[in-house]
Amino acid sequence: MFKNRDVISILDFSDAELEKIFEVSKKMEKTMKKGSSVLKGKILANAFFEPSTRTRLSFETAMHKLGGSVIGFTDIEATSIAKGENLADTIRMLDAYADVIAIRHKVEGAAKLAAEIADAPVINAGDGTKNHPTQAMVDLYTVWKEFGRIDGLNFVLMGDLRYGRAVASFLYALTKFKPRKIYLVSPPLLKPRKELEEHLTKSGVNFEIRENLQDIIQETDVLYVTRIQRERFPDPAEYEKVKGSYRVDLETIKNAKDGMIIMHPLPRVGEIALEVDTHKSARYFQQAANGVPVRMALLYLLLEGEK
Amino acid sequence: MFKNRDVISILDFSDAELEKIFEVSKKMEKTMKKGSSVLKGKILANAFFEPSTRTRLSFETAMHKLGGSVIGFTDIEATSIAKGENLADTIRMLDAYADVIAIRHKVEGAAKLAAEIADAPVINAGDGTKNHPTQAMVDLYTVWKEFGRIDGLNFVLMGDLRYGRAVASFLYALTKFKPRKIYLVSPPLLKPRKELEEHLTKSGVNFEIRENLQDIIQETDVLYVTRIQRERFPDPAEYEKVKGSYRVDLETIKNAKDGMIIMHPLPRVGEIALEVDTHKSARYFQQAANGVPVRMALLYLLLEGEK
Amino acid sequence: MFKNRDVISILDFSDAELEKIFEVSKKMEKTMKKGSSVLKGKILANAFFEPSTRTRLSFETAMHKLGGSVIGFTDIEATSIAKGENLADTIRMLDAYADVIAIRHKVEGAAKLAAEIADAPVINAGDGTKNHPTQAMVDLYTVWKEFGRIDGLNFVLMGDLRYGRAVASFLYALTKFKPRKIYLVSPPLLKPRKELEEHLTKSGVNFEIRENLQDIIQETDVLYVTRIQRERFPDPAEYEKVKGSYRVDLETIKNAKDGMIIMHPLPRVGEIALEVDTHKSARYFQQAANGVPVRMALLYLLLEGEK
Repeated sequence: MFKNRDVISILDFSDAELEKIFEVSKKMEKTMKKGSSVLKGKILANAFFEPSTRTRLSFETAMHKLGGSVIGFTDIEATSIAKGENLADTIRMLDAYADVIAIRHKVEGAAKLAAEIADAPVINAGDGTKNHPTQAMVDLYTVWKEFGRIDGLNFVLMGDLRYGRAVASFLYALTKFKPRKIYLVSPPLLKPRKELEEHLTKSGVNFEIRENLQDIIQETDVLYVTRIQRERFPDPAEYEKVKGSYRVDLETIKNAKDGMIIMHPLPRVGEIALEVDTHKSARYFQQAANGVPVRMALLYLLLEGEK
Repeated sequence: MFKNRDVISILDFSDAELEKIFEVSKKMEKTMKKGSSVLKGKILANAFFEPSTRTRLSFETAMHKLGGSVIGFTDIEATSIAKGENLADTIRMLDAYADVIAIRHKVEGAAKLAAEIADAPVINAGDGTKNHPTQAMVDLYTVWKEFGRIDGLNFVLMGDLRYGRAVASFLYALTKFKPRKIYLVSPPLLKPRKELEEHLTKSGVNFEIRENLQDIIQETDVLYVTRIQRERFPDPAEYEKVKGSYRVDLETIKNAKDGMIIMHPLPRVGEIALEVDTHKSARYFQQAANGVPVRMALLYLLLEGEK
Repeated sequence: MFKNRDVISILDFSDAELEKIFEVSKKMEKTMKKGSSVLKGKILANAFFEPSTRTRLSFETAMHKLGGSVIGFTDIEATSIAKGENLADTIRMLDAYADVIAIRHKVEGAAKLAAEIADAPVINAGDGTKNHPTQAMVDLYTVWKEFGRIDGLNFVLMGDLRYGRAVASFLYALTKFKPRKIYLVSPPLLKPRKELEEHLTKSGVNFEIRENLQDIIQETDVLYVTRIQRERFPDPAEYEKVKGSYRVDLETIKNAKDGMIIMHPLPRVGEIALEVDTHKSARYFQQAANGVPVRMALLYLLLEGEK
């Protein structure tokens, strides 16, 4: 079911498969403490054509904690790509060297292309604007650990729903389950792409687009916030206005439902006030920490299968 | 014979020693599958003063597959060299930390200097314009695996024979054996350096300089193609003209001898058309893959000797 | 005593604790030869916000030689910091992934802040202008190995005593012991900061500021030289003049006391002439080599405690 499988889009996984990944992830939280040798002699190639800290380092940590090794690059400049090599040739090389390949790329479809070329399983570590399946797994796992389920919960996704690939990937992921309701809260300029909205409609998920959080905060179980990037706005004044309206602080959440959790794929740049960090609802640091056991589970399942 | 030896130039190795390396490489292809712990506790320092993907990553993979670790740098900017440190001091530091050092450097003789300073064995991972001995070993191994021998074969080396250090190193390597004939095919501007030509003459190898591939394709056993770099040409129009004439596609090889193989040290930028990739003669991806077992063999022999 | 402890300033350690570190370091020189598995499954995060070769690579070597793994970054550009993330969030992430964190940062106090946030022990690998505790330990260990003690020796610290954080850290370290005398030799522009001078006075150490080495070379046991950076001088002519006066060559040391050793935290750029490298008093390469066993001792003590 998992062995040698490529991980390109979260949509390729059924809810049952995702639950399996969560269960293995849970076990990996213990394995992580002591380390394991189960992937000894195996190599992960990290092909990061775009910079990343959290995703890259959590993949490396996951591989090391399972006894494996890591090769790769973190930057195009130091690679043959800078000499004009095509992506396919680079992937073929990594395929010859490594047992599994994680690729991050600016261009949509890069991971899929890599998967078509490589015999080794390819993991999309983020490409284009909508696919970041391992982040979606980490996000779902964070909810699953908290509530024991995804189904029946009310979600609010707030911030940049247009260009943020983590939040888009999470939104696609939610359509694999039966959330009670999904609210999409963003400035008009950063509303979800049409393609994503159509997918939500088609999948029968109950969703609603809003511009304001306050009306719905009382019924929210999961508040998922994302970074709004200055460079998305032609007019800096517009950015400043928007930035303030989609920021979460203690005032914003004072009427929140008991048990609500706040998530963020990080890095953040002011969307969540520092004062929220110690609030009982903050889960974004735990969410980041979950990156390791989930990626351990995935690497294990792809390389060793279920046992 | 091999233990603690420096690997500076392919000319330092006899044909018998090279055959020994090939035999160990062959065994390493199996070891590579599962991984080994034979170099556990040993450290390779990758001192890459010039960027490289294939060479660097295949060294790292080789070391990891044998159970060893890797330290190093891939870029001068982040090192003390940028603070004005001399090469000797940098090498002394790496010598204190590592069990074996692989160095890539723009300047001819950098590896030799490093070897004079370091107690640990030093491997030239490419310096100046003519020495890249591990690439030459990988190339020879690719031919040896295919034909069971180097002697008696017809070689064509085509492209930039002047600045390409992989092809120069391969050419020096061939003089250690008894090829039937070597054809050197290049635009006039990129003909081999006088020093290399003199070495060929002196070593008694049967070679001939040509400007055209078509007359000799029917008797070629090994067609070795290299990248022609735009920046070598003062006149861009000249580059465009030349680029087209030394490009291999299915048309170019339609009259090729049965069993001919096409090699390229990679990266390529158009010298071999993508349509050739699936042709039975294409061996350049396998050649790249051979980088790992050959470097495993070398690291093993330098650190453990023959057993 | 050591387990889970943060290493922020050399002043946090007593002389007895430092002696303990030296004794473990001595044992680690043997362990280093063969490698060990004592930290298998453990991960060091190298958070280098400023470039470094020697410190970074010796930490990596130390961790690998003990069987552990390393993750991290060597450069801000490829991290989330470049996306505007605050230091605390970056540290929280590393804390979730790694078992111990080494941080280098331009800003004074960055390591202390990191230590307040992280549960994992944090090692200051150099921050601001005065703290570089592991370098100070390496330097003290070099003296201790040579003389069997720090107490009762005459020290000369020469060069940039104002901006060099290695030498400042060493000077603070010496106040933990009872040196006979410390001479501070520097151009007026690069005299120690007032704060450091006050600390020396308060700690009751016998020290004297000088502008010339020759008067005191005959009574010197340890001559510690540091790099003078051109960019510290508004006037290039002033730099050229100063550079020459604080340079060590064979002539400079011809009247030196028998048994004197010359140290330098490296990299050097001309402060010690190459001709001194083979002189019996040169200890700077050994000092650099000592970086590995001392950091092995520290990593071992922080992660495993005394056994």
